[in-house]
Amino acid sequence: MIGGSLAKGARRAELCREIVGIDRDLENLQIARELGVIDSGFENPDQIEGPFDLAVLATPVGSFAQLFEQLKPHWSKAKILTDVGSTKESVIAVAKSVFGEIPANFVPGHPIAGSEKSGVLAACDDLYRGRRVILTPLAQTDEHATRIVAEFWHKLGARVAFMDPAHHDDILAATSHLPHLVAFSLVDMLGRKDEKDEILQYAAGGFKDFTRLASSDPKMWLDICFANRSRLMRLIEEFREELTLINDVLEKQDHQRLFDIFRSANQARRRFLVRFEAE
Amino acid sequence: MIGGSLAKGARRAELCREIVGIDRDLENLQIARELGVIDSGFENPDQIEGPFDLAVLATPVGSFAQLFEQLKPHWSKAKILTDVGSTKESVIAVAKSVFGEIPANFVPGHPIAGSEKSGVLAACDDLYRGRRVILTPLAQTDEHATRIVAEFWHKLGARVAFMDPAHHDDILAATSHLPHLVAFSLVDMLGRKDEKDEILQYAAGGFKDFTRLASSDPKMWLDICFANRSRLMRLIEEFREELTLINDVLEKQDHQRLFDIFRSANQARRRFLVRFEAE
Repeated sequence: MIGGSLAKGARRAELCREIVGIDRDLENLQIARELGVIDSGFENPDQIEGPFDLAVLATPVGSFAQLFEQLKPHWSKAKILTDVGSTKESVIAVAKSVFGEIPANFVPGHPIAGSEKSGVLAACDDLYRGRRVILTPLAQTDEHATRIVAEFWHKLGARVAFMDPAHHDDILAATSHLPHLVAFSLVDMLGRKDEKDEILQYAAGGFKDFTRLASSDPKMWLDICFANRSRLMRLIEEFREELTLINDVLEKQDHQRLFDIFRSANQARRRFLVRFEAE
Repeated sequence: MIGGSLAKGARRAELCREIVGIDRDLENLQIARELGVIDSGFENPDQIEGPFDLAVLATPVGSFAQLFEQLKPHWSKAKILTDVGSTKESVIAVAKSVFGEIPANFVPGHPIAGSEKSGVLAACDDLYRGRRVILTPLAQTDEHATRIVAEFWHKLGARVAFMDPAHHDDILAATSHLPHLVAFSLVDMLGRKDEKDEILQYAAGGFKDFTRLASSDPKMWLDICFANRSRLMRLIEEFREELTLINDVLEKQDHQRLFDIFRSANQARRRFLVRFEAE
């Protein structure tokens, strides 16, 4: 979905002459070829010739160690490489362990444009329009490479920001990783209850939206959660404390306090919406 | 929104000759009159003449004590009464304390068709189409009254179910009240962080859906949470334990266990979606 949308967007914006896809999922690869999302497709980087102007790594973050090992002998086939992994410290740490130091032509990146869907059939050419892309180049990253990657995203309609990898992981842990984990946990908990059939039967539109994140790909999110686990563990602890506070407020029947919490959440979301809808 | 949608739906389905609205919010009342949602509107039940075939009480559950007291001298103006409160035990307990025993012509009910919006401007005449309505008549409730109320909802396109009030409150605590509380809590927590502006800036569509419930009316949800607080406190405790488990799984790097949790949540939501979309 992420890689396919990128290919479709690049094609539409006329950013490339030829698009080559690499995917271990041969069925997905064939669909991508049949739909014209890619010009040719291969299962393995060994099978392709270079050189490429730009290579984008779009696999679950847990596969990056293996991916970098596999790409190492072919690394010079691409002039510039970037990735779309949802955690940046982990990707950078893995690159360091495989290459000794981060290759100067690798620009770590993350487009914030997910969806619970996956696969090339869910790809669309304007997925990145108006969305934010965070690039986390390092001191040793080639500045020209960073500029090219930024320009690439910009031409897909995205708004590019630069950030320190650790700061990226802090922010995304809060806005994306924790909400996913909470949605998965809550649905898992309700799905294990004796009344689970009735619960699902009487759930409505609000529940549908709230739990949409729990329809995301389990493997992809497993990787993300472990890749950012220390931050997530701190946030889970913080959220457990927030729930303890809520419980306490209910116990003490402190109406004013609970109202203040609800109202401040309500206002925070309104600030978010104003910004989000304006983009 | 709830009362207005009911009025619009009843008008469209030609279920009534005349609709009278009572609302302390005079602005809302005037809009309802101007839009033709109601034929006439009053601030206070004292001001109206009867008799009415059906009266529907659609106010936040925390106002029912005052509402019943206010309606008590006018109770006989309506042949049948029902309500749309999100908790049923609390409404029934309050009725009992005001009237001594639950009037036989009062049929407690709850249409599961919320939204984060409120006010008559958000009302729509097909809000209840395909939605579920739970009625919780008691032993002393007049069977004819129950039948009329069930038929009323049925004619608005809703699917009526009957349930014990306690069981209704159990199910709704899980599918609706806990998710709202979790959404409010999480947004409150993130909204208090030092990086709150950046967090809101980099949040995307998934966050928007996940947090939609936090845009619900704070006062209405305050009432619901206190009205169903003992069940909610048990569920919060259960959810805190689930989060402890998740933390533990992250700590121990138990990939298989976390994958199982994500996958079972994923499957539970799929079961919900299949059912929800089919309706």
